[in-house]
Amino acid sequence: MEFKATQIAEILGGEILGDSSASVSTLAKIEEGEKGAMTFLSNPKYTKHIYTTNASIVIVNKDFEATQPISATLIKVEDAYQAFTQILEFYNEYKNQKSGIESPVSVHDSAKLGDDIYIGAFTSIGANVSIGNNVKIYPNCYIGDNVVIKNNTTLFAGVKIYTDCIIGNNCKIHAGTVIGADGFGFAPTEDGTYKSIPQIGNVIIEDNVDIGANTTIDRATMGSTLIKQGVKLDNLIQVGHNVVIGKNTVIAAQTAIAGSSKVGENCMIGGHVAISGHISIGNNVKISGKTGVGKSIKDNSVIRGIPAMNYNDYNKSYIYFRKLPQIVEELRNK
Amino acid sequence: MEFKATQIAEILGGEILGDSSASVSTLAKIEEGEKGAMTFLSNPKYTKHIYTTNASIVIVNKDFEATQPISATLIKVEDAYQAFTQILEFYNEYKNQKSGIESPVSVHDSAKLGDDIYIGAFTSIGANVSIGNNVKIYPNCYIGDNVVIKNNTTLFAGVKIYTDCIIGNNCKIHAGTVIGADGFGFAPTEDGTYKSIPQIGNVIIEDNVDIGANTTIDRATMGSTLIKQGVKLDNLIQVGHNVVIGKNTVIAAQTAIAGSSKVGENCMIGGHVAISGHISIGNNVKISGKTGVGKSIKDNSVIRGIPAMNYNDYNKSYIYFRKLPQIVEELRNK
Amino acid sequence: MEFKATQIAEILGGEILGDSSASVSTLAKIEEGEKGAMTFLSNPKYTKHIYTTNASIVIVNKDFEATQPISATLIKVEDAYQAFTQILEFYNEYKNQKSGIESPVSVHDSAKLGDDIYIGAFTSIGANVSIGNNVKIYPNCYIGDNVVIKNNTTLFAGVKIYTDCIIGNNCKIHAGTVIGADGFGFAPTEDGTYKSIPQIGNVIIEDNVDIGANTTIDRATMGSTLIKQGVKLDNLIQVGHNVVIGKNTVIAAQTAIAGSSKVGENCMIGGHVAISGHISIGNNVKISGKTGVGKSIKDNSVIRGIPAMNYNDYNKSYIYFRKLPQIVEELRNK
Repeated sequence: MEFKATQIAEILGGEILGDSSASVSTLAKIEEGEKGAMTFLSNPKYTKHIYTTNASIVIVNKDFEATQPISATLIKVEDAYQAFTQILEFYNEYKNQKSGIESPVSVHDSAKLGDDIYIGAFTSIGANVSIGNNVKIYPNCYIGDNVVIKNNTTLFAGVKIYTDCIIGNNCKIHAGTVIGADGFGFAPTEDGTYKSIPQIGNVIIEDNVDIGANTTIDRATMGSTLIKQGVKLDNLIQVGHNVVIGKNTVIAAQTAIAGSSKVGENCMIGGHVAISGHISIGNNVKISGKTGVGKSIKDNSVIRGIPAMNYNDYNKSYIYFRKLPQIVEELRNK
Repeated sequence: MEFKATQIAEILGGEILGDSSASVSTLAKIEEGEKGAMTFLSNPKYTKHIYTTNASIVIVNKDFEATQPISATLIKVEDAYQAFTQILEFYNEYKNQKSGIESPVSVHDSAKLGDDIYIGAFTSIGANVSIGNNVKIYPNCYIGDNVVIKNNTTLFAGVKIYTDCIIGNNCKIHAGTVIGADGFGFAPTEDGTYKSIPQIGNVIIEDNVDIGANTTIDRATMGSTLIKQGVKLDNLIQVGHNVVIGKNTVIAAQTAIAGSSKVGENCMIGGHVAISGHISIGNNVKISGKTGVGKSIKDNSVIRGIPAMNYNDYNKSYIYFRKLPQIVEELRNK
Repeated sequence: MEFKATQIAEILGGEILGDSSASVSTLAKIEEGEKGAMTFLSNPKYTKHIYTTNASIVIVNKDFEATQPISATLIKVEDAYQAFTQILEFYNEYKNQKSGIESPVSVHDSAKLGDDIYIGAFTSIGANVSIGNNVKIYPNCYIGDNVVIKNNTTLFAGVKIYTDCIIGNNCKIHAGTVIGADGFGFAPTEDGTYKSIPQIGNVIIEDNVDIGANTTIDRATMGSTLIKQGVKLDNLIQVGHNVVIGKNTVIAAQTAIAGSSKVGENCMIGGHVAISGHISIGNNVKISGKTGVGKSIKDNSVIRGIPAMNYNDYNKSYIYFRKLPQIVEELRNK
């Protein structure tokens, strides 16, 4: 994809200074800009780079005044940062611009397909599946029977969705993620073996949810595992059966939430956190990476440790832990 | 799937009270039952809900006597809880009722396929593979050369099994799991680079093993990585090369066992546990979530911590850790 | 595959003692050797096993002199251990000997395919992709538009590579691994929801990199996530956007490196380690399993703990932690 300065100025409603025939095919930071790249200057801290950058086009604020010669073509706009993100989004959408149904795919006769969808090769879509408008399903996906996928949602390559699950509008699910596998439920028997407990519920993902790559969200034993609107999950996360995650909660990579636990709204959960089963995490809770949460946690808590305790208290105790040999020596010799 | 009260009563050998034309298409907890759902009442604690539930059918114990009007149709059986699990299992099997060979699949001429099998679209089956009777292989699976899969085993979508691995009878392997990738073995060389050590062994999974989604079990360097009968593994677990896991051991999500370690029988291992390589965990060991095990552990131990120590001792020490600043202050001022 | 003693002796330039018609179809440790297996004797500690092994062929050092009768055929070579690894590698290559293009595959017209490549069934290759010579791509892989894969690289089943990523020469990427999914970048908005930040960079994997199964490496927000030559990554690892991993660094399973962090050369990082975003780990750093690294770390450090501290200091403090109740009791009673 190649853009000319004139095209960009038109998209952004900006004014060109310099060579209006300059063209770019990539985006870069101002300090790393090479020929053919477009960048922007918003933070005055970076102003010095505009005089040395090799970028071909730089988006600048309307009020920018050069104090030295600049080789790049400038495009002046109201807000350079916002204009640049506008271009970023344009480029991002362009990159994932796919349409039509590739061949071969396996689509059950009873499946309902919306308008303007993309289905990549080697994707299979089961009986009674409902796919909304403007949905993109990349190659090698598996959509089980009775699954519902609402409008404007994208599944990247190799996503697997088991029977009966529901995916909302405007969701993005990255490659290799598995939604709706059986919950980990086994009842011990008298001879020491385990009998599996049937897992007949489903997973419901609400609108505007983003899910990373190779994450797993298990179906409910009965009822639904529920990921509420606006939740953002990173890669390689484990969500157990019957878990509920509240609105706009953000969770970093490799965190696990065990069966039947509830996580509140607007929480920020670090990576490598483990949350035990059958507990409840309040709203606006912050959990530091690598924390092990074994008990329910109140709203607005900030926690750390294994098991979890107040974040600041953990850090204070840890200062003493670091010097325990010396402290004990000191106290023994007192 | 819709069941009528008369059909359910017949399956369970139960007696109908109320509208025998009631029908249900889903299962629910008694307190969450909606029209069209079937539920059960076994624990007297929940008796109050039977008078308010909107479920269409409730399975109750033979001796249940209503003290208020009930809108649902009742089915009286010897043991309501057991009758309900019987229906759960029936429904669960129904849900995963798949048969035949979808199109396209890629099956090598030399592969032997058992009776009554299911092979989903876009699955590939290599040379000399042997598939038992009543095996179900969902779409997008990869079965490498010489793999053996015994009777009644199910592989969900996108499972990958490398060459030479053996999967037992009655196993369930969930979507995205990888069995038989190379063990992580590299020998340092004099120039600081690493040379990979050929991994020519395999993985053997015995009977009645359940494996969750996106789990990885590496092949042995030589010989076999061995998962013994009745083992239950959750999602996103890592099992290194040449590991042996004993009968009926249960392991929660995101736990890792490094190369050549042995885990005993009937162990219960929490989530996010890391077990070092070349060590041995005894039988009946319990390991708390997030523990790091660096040394061999005796039978019947219960452990926690990084590195692992006795579970109760860890918890006692942690009580002091929580108050270290105050305790040291107190002792300094003594 | 069956080898005769005469064939092996020829490959190794060795001398046969005993039955030269012996043949083998597998490899084993000397103490586990069964009929039909080949093994070797190098370490004198294992000499006793050569008199009892059931292996059909044993490779021994030139100077080996039997003191009792041996049933196996011996092959005498200069260095038995090295000769055995030579056979291991031969066998390993043989096992992964695949060639040609299976059917069906989906290859875009504009893709350029090198010589002597293998493409497994149900693999899809996007527009403008460039595949080098002697590349092997197993079934069910997804190669997005504009991806470059250089010579002699192998992708096992179900690997997914997003658009614009570059994979070097002589790499091995195991099944289910995802390269180039969006980085986890979301900007909070005033109403509590998050807006995704477009991720328009890519991933560059240099030469001789090995990556395990179900690992995820996110694309850069802008620029490149960079895995330098000779890096070895185990299974289920998370590498965030814009991370750089230096030459010949080795990382064990389930470790996570958050966005924009840099890891130096020749580091050894254990399993279950979490490295925060925007920090820098020096060269030759060793990080113990389960460590949480929150700050930048100098060259040659050896660290452990949450948060990370000097490895030996952690272990010393932990000795006191283990006995905290008794120590505090002692000091209170002093």
